[in-house]
Amino acid sequence: MRVRIENVTLVTTDETNRVFENGCLVWEDDTILALNDFSVHVDEVIDGQGGLLLPGMVNTHCHLGMIPFRSLGDDCPDRLRRFLFPLENAAMTRELAQASARYAAAEMMLGGVTTVFDMYYFEDALAEAMVEMNMRAVLAETIVDFANCDSDASYGGLALGERFIQEWKGRHPLITPAIGPHATNTNSAEVLKQAQAIAERCDVLLSLHTAEMDYEMETFRKERNQTPIEYLESIGLLSPHLVAAHCIHVNDQDLALMAKYGCRIAHCIGSNMKAGKGIAPLKKMVAHHIPVGLGTDGASSGNTLDLFAQLPLIGKAHKTANHDRALFPAKEILPLATIDGARVLNLDDQIGSLTPGKKADLVLVETQSANMFPIYDPFSALVYSAHAGNVDSVWINGVQTVKHKQLVRQDLRCLREDLEAKMQFFKAEALRRSEDL
Amino acid sequence: MRVRIENVTLVTTDETNRVFENGCLVWEDDTILALNDFSVHVDEVIDGQGGLLLPGMVNTHCHLGMIPFRSLGDDCPDRLRRFLFPLENAAMTRELAQASARYAAAEMMLGGVTTVFDMYYFEDALAEAMVEMNMRAVLAETIVDFANCDSDASYGGLALGERFIQEWKGRHPLITPAIGPHATNTNSAEVLKQAQAIAERCDVLLSLHTAEMDYEMETFRKERNQTPIEYLESIGLLSPHLVAAHCIHVNDQDLALMAKYGCRIAHCIGSNMKAGKGIAPLKKMVAHHIPVGLGTDGASSGNTLDLFAQLPLIGKAHKTANHDRALFPAKEILPLATIDGARVLNLDDQIGSLTPGKKADLVLVETQSANMFPIYDPFSALVYSAHAGNVDSVWINGVQTVKHKQLVRQDLRCLREDLEAKMQFFKAEALRRSEDL
Repeated sequence: MRVRIENVTLVTTDETNRVFENGCLVWEDDTILALNDFSVHVDEVIDGQGGLLLPGMVNTHCHLGMIPFRSLGDDCPDRLRRFLFPLENAAMTRELAQASARYAAAEMMLGGVTTVFDMYYFEDALAEAMVEMNMRAVLAETIVDFANCDSDASYGGLALGERFIQEWKGRHPLITPAIGPHATNTNSAEVLKQAQAIAERCDVLLSLHTAEMDYEMETFRKERNQTPIEYLESIGLLSPHLVAAHCIHVNDQDLALMAKYGCRIAHCIGSNMKAGKGIAPLKKMVAHHIPVGLGTDGASSGNTLDLFAQLPLIGKAHKTANHDRALFPAKEILPLATIDGARVLNLDDQIGSLTPGKKADLVLVETQSANMFPIYDPFSALVYSAHAGNVDSVWINGVQTVKHKQLVRQDLRCLREDLEAKMQFFKAEALRRSEDL
Repeated sequence: MRVRIENVTLVTTDETNRVFENGCLVWEDDTILALNDFSVHVDEVIDGQGGLLLPGMVNTHCHLGMIPFRSLGDDCPDRLRRFLFPLENAAMTRELAQASARYAAAEMMLGGVTTVFDMYYFEDALAEAMVEMNMRAVLAETIVDFANCDSDASYGGLALGERFIQEWKGRHPLITPAIGPHATNTNSAEVLKQAQAIAERCDVLLSLHTAEMDYEMETFRKERNQTPIEYLESIGLLSPHLVAAHCIHVNDQDLALMAKYGCRIAHCIGSNMKAGKGIAPLKKMVAHHIPVGLGTDGASSGNTLDLFAQLPLIGKAHKTANHDRALFPAKEILPLATIDGARVLNLDDQIGSLTPGKKADLVLVETQSANMFPIYDPFSALVYSAHAGNVDSVWINGVQTVKHKQLVRQDLRCLREDLEAKMQFFKAEALRRSEDL
């Protein structure tokens, strides 16, 4: 099946960041075939109605199971240990995590995200949900030093994670397994090394939260006189397998180490700023040629799972932090959400740009809404003006999942009703714990 | 005509910031009559479908004529003097400013803004546009030290502005005239004093840009050894008439002065951060009990004219700047966009909260979209999750202007076509000037 979408501006985020006004794109089954070639015979023609066609966005850090937490205790200083960990232990189930993941995938698609990196629990159930939703995903079972919702023992994620990788590696074109030790400070050095061994043995990515928390920095300084990144190097965790989430508090030496070992970074500006944690040194990361993608974090920390909410923040936060209006122009910000994210997830040979031979992960942003006129520069329009509600249509692996702002293959209301039904106990527990706020 | 909207959560932003789940609101003609009183006989009942009903938002700093500039030269350091001033002089006309203002009003309504403070040119034409659109507005003719699009002489805005005030004061319930000397550094002391005299004589607000630019701060320090605020005090410009826009670079003494004289501030976080200028000390402003509202700035600086784009930035920027997650919880942020904005514009007896006796300026935010579930806290949902596309319906002065995300009284496509037709020369000039970027 060959399809051509025309009457669109192609925003390719390819190697030279090309833009083609009034262009067209042809794909066959799951693969992009040609740009701007009207001579290719096609079975179907789609009118893009003057919209902007871009590669599907890549969310490099998310927790798919956390939709039930959204808007709970948002401004509470100790929420991780007051709400998140206890509620996960008390009320998170396989069924709830899976229903949440389906809903999260729907929200992401509706907002233009076509690939997600997840670190959560019950990854086999989440993989099923992603296949069902036709969402591209890299999925990592969490390993943490306490018993949790899918393991009665601490570090249960090690065995669960390896089994998940064995079961899902090469099994489905949309799913790539990975491994996810929670953080530098919630795993022993021994367990981190074991996780690394799994990553190397199975050739998968390893992701963890690092250089994120004030107390994390303080502990590593006091107890080891090291930064978390120096610590990770000392135990052999710095490697091309590593997707380091956050990295708010990294210095020049840390970045030089990360560059030397070929590590990647998932930058979660919205989540980091909402928590008052700080602004990661993106300018320096880029200067060190470290691949950096954008992450929404989970719905409890980042609230929304679309990258349109992150794009203007990238510009605003880093221009302000560096007191430089010209820094990170819009044309450098959009690729962070597409091709750079694909690089972070080792998927840049498959996705991240409108390039013949790559997978047909496509997002059509309409330009009929009030906020999308005029457009002198499509990058500016996408970065500074657009919101998730401007996403008109989405294709993942050549399959349409969103059409005219509605899911094609599911009903959002049904996904919500299912999630809500499975949230009853969780919600009661959540309300109980927030009563004295 | 009495109308009741029910099946809504009322987010009142009233004196005690009350929220009523599953509430109702009754209004009669242009005025709110009752909250949660189902016994009042009404002529019409509207089903709010479980949405959040809030007072119309107040945009305290905007330039309605600047839609034609959107996405032009966004990341260019010298854009004010490279694009804005020259293009206004070369290509801005009464007809274009008016068409832009209509479009801007449409964009604002569709995004939940029901009152705007404008500082631009051709204010009489803009007032007509606001009446036509049924938008509540405080309108100030710009005074500046060079000939511009509506005046062949420098400071022509003084006479134009006073005439506009005389013509429009008390003329229409939606329109309040004001006066707008452009900035501390683009007007002589003598002209600023004349503008102040007009504000006092006519009892209107006076707004100017101040403590915004690095070079402004530098010039006042070098030439007068004063801050712009100290300078304004020295020439008699600090008064309850003053709505000071931006105030990024104000110190404790400046704020004490502003508090002493009863001044107000329009805080434009998005525009300020996008320009890399800095983060105004909102925490201190609030501590000094200075009324502070939110402003989008013009579409050239802030890109979008809705306050939903500003709300999450307020939390994120100020939590980060103060390294304090608990600072500015969502329930303190939303009122900045409603009742505090109304205070800034001296309209808090009329608008800014869901209070019987106030004008029926209402915004219904739907909760069916993916990003609006679950909602433990409506403030969190509105501040951290919502975007302009979630606004379902809007009433201004009791008249419905937006219904199910569409304009009621106009067609957005017609407004755009009209604007685009009037933009031809402007656009050619804009493209010519951006060729060598």
